[in-house]
Amino acid sequence: MEALAIFAYAFSGLIEARKRRLDAVGAFLVALVTAFGGGTVRDVLLSRRPFYWVEHQDYVLLIFAMAIFAPIFLRVTSRLFDQRALLITDAIGLGLFSVSGTSIALDAQMPAFTATMMGVITGVFGGVLRDVLCNEIPLILRDSRPYAVCAFAGCWIYLGLDRLDVDTIYNVLISTAFILIARLITFKFDIRLPH
Amino acid sequence: MEALAIFAYAFSGLIEARKRRLDAVGAFLVALVTAFGGGTVRDVLLSRRPFYWVEHQDYVLLIFAMAIFAPIFLRVTSRLFDQRALLITDAIGLGLFSVSGTSIALDAQMPAFTATMMGVITGVFGGVLRDVLCNEIPLILRDSRPYAVCAFAGCWIYLGLDRLDVDTIYNVLISTAFILIARLITFKFDIRLPH
Amino acid sequence: MEALAIFAYAFSGLIEARKRRLDAVGAFLVALVTAFGGGTVRDVLLSRRPFYWVEHQDYVLLIFAMAIFAPIFLRVTSRLFDQRALLITDAIGLGLFSVSGTSIALDAQMPAFTATMMGVITGVFGGVLRDVLCNEIPLILRDSRPYAVCAFAGCWIYLGLDRLDVDTIYNVLISTAFILIARLITFKFDIRLPH
Repeated sequence: MEALAIFAYAFSGLIEARKRRLDAVGAFLVALVTAFGGGTVRDVLLSRRPFYWVEHQDYVLLIFAMAIFAPIFLRVTSRLFDQRALLITDAIGLGLFSVSGTSIALDAQMPAFTATMMGVITGVFGGVLRDVLCNEIPLILRDSRPYAVCAFAGCWIYLGLDRLDVDTIYNVLISTAFILIARLITFKFDIRLPH
Repeated sequence: MEALAIFAYAFSGLIEARKRRLDAVGAFLVALVTAFGGGTVRDVLLSRRPFYWVEHQDYVLLIFAMAIFAPIFLRVTSRLFDQRALLITDAIGLGLFSVSGTSIALDAQMPAFTATMMGVITGVFGGVLRDVLCNEIPLILRDSRPYAVCAFAGCWIYLGLDRLDVDTIYNVLISTAFILIARLITFKFDIRLPH
Repeated sequence: MEALAIFAYAFSGLIEARKRRLDAVGAFLVALVTAFGGGTVRDVLLSRRPFYWVEHQDYVLLIFAMAIFAPIFLRVTSRLFDQRALLITDAIGLGLFSVSGTSIALDAQMPAFTATMMGVITGVFGGVLRDVLCNEIPLILRDSRPYAVCAFAGCWIYLGLDRLDVDTIYNVLISTAFILIARLITFKFDIRLPH
């Protein structure tokens, strides 16, 4: 599951890099920042070390390989995954990252509201940094489709169930599933935020 | 006073978000980053925890409410505050943030020049991050009107009076007032930086 | 040598600031971020204090003077340094920053791959932040000429020679020279990365 989430985020970085005609170094860095940027910003804010990508170098090497073979890789995957598969994979990533971010912030004794904010940061900041590097206004700031809002709601559900002493594994599954389903429903019915 | 400074910065974030047609999530995040970005960057550089916005969640909730009701809120405030009121509020924010940043850096045993730089960072980095998120060259880098320069001068005044053992409360008031007045005078007489 | 590296990076910041018509404050901040951004990001990631620019305030003051007299300064230097001199100075900077970054990361007990990544970050992130501030897609992400790749290879050479117990001073000289020469050769023969 975790590997799938990282893969989904790195993949969206590769697609963005391709669109912007970046070279192999650009594709690698943008994919890396998209996958690990949210967690790294959270860990800097929480003064937490070591970073996930320092402890799991195999994921970095996987992204390295993905970036080098990006042209072939993107052609193959565009056949395997259609738009809907991408949406689902990304929503699973959003769910897992946000919920795990909230859980880590709670372990670091953060108060409730801050913990959910850290969850949302973990889920969305990779994409924000990706868009800043690609010289665009971050998608989550202007796309009126609920994305951060789904993550935010899911983080509060995690927090609530955590207070009710629900077992962590079940809690992660329930909250992540909530975010995934919320994202798909709001997408399906084209629900929009005010702006 | 402090609440006024945070309010002024969050408000400038909301206006920028409106201009860029961001949605409610975008308005909230940009307002948040504008208000707390400078202090957070300073605290990361000084390895200082907890962040101001972790200890004062009520301000975060206030900005949350401001962002949700941004369209109504901006209409009401545009009647209450004219351009001049905004300029003054923002200059008070610049003064308070810069002076308090210098004071915090001195407490963290930073040398004189670094302490004033930390003050300026506290005062101006919220606006820099706001503009980066909105995909613009930060205003303070290109607007030739003195802004960072006023803050910088005020930080040195705080430092000098601190060496002379002036009481901290008076010192903050004097230095902040200096920055406010310097900003208004340079604006009034349209004094420009070389470029 | 170190002074030359910092000078080269600050200089590229000044040129970029000029191109974007920034004012004196903008020129100073962009030059500062270009020169010290890479090392600062590395130190934040490694939880390392104090920052180089806190311990060596004289370099900050030098950049301050360079920014104030930027118009005169750039005219003089454009006569003294031609395009090739700039390329060489920048390549020396890239070499020194990357190799010293790797060395610092190894001292902080980072694993091999992470240490070389920290080296590359030290070498290239100043330029990335410079371009983000100037609202451009960072050059190293899109220019298909090898830059980060040369730094990456040189960091691995440093790492290898370090394992072989080569004396640090010789090791720094060899690895830096490798990066410099690699950069000049790939430039001369117009070698390109795939994209």
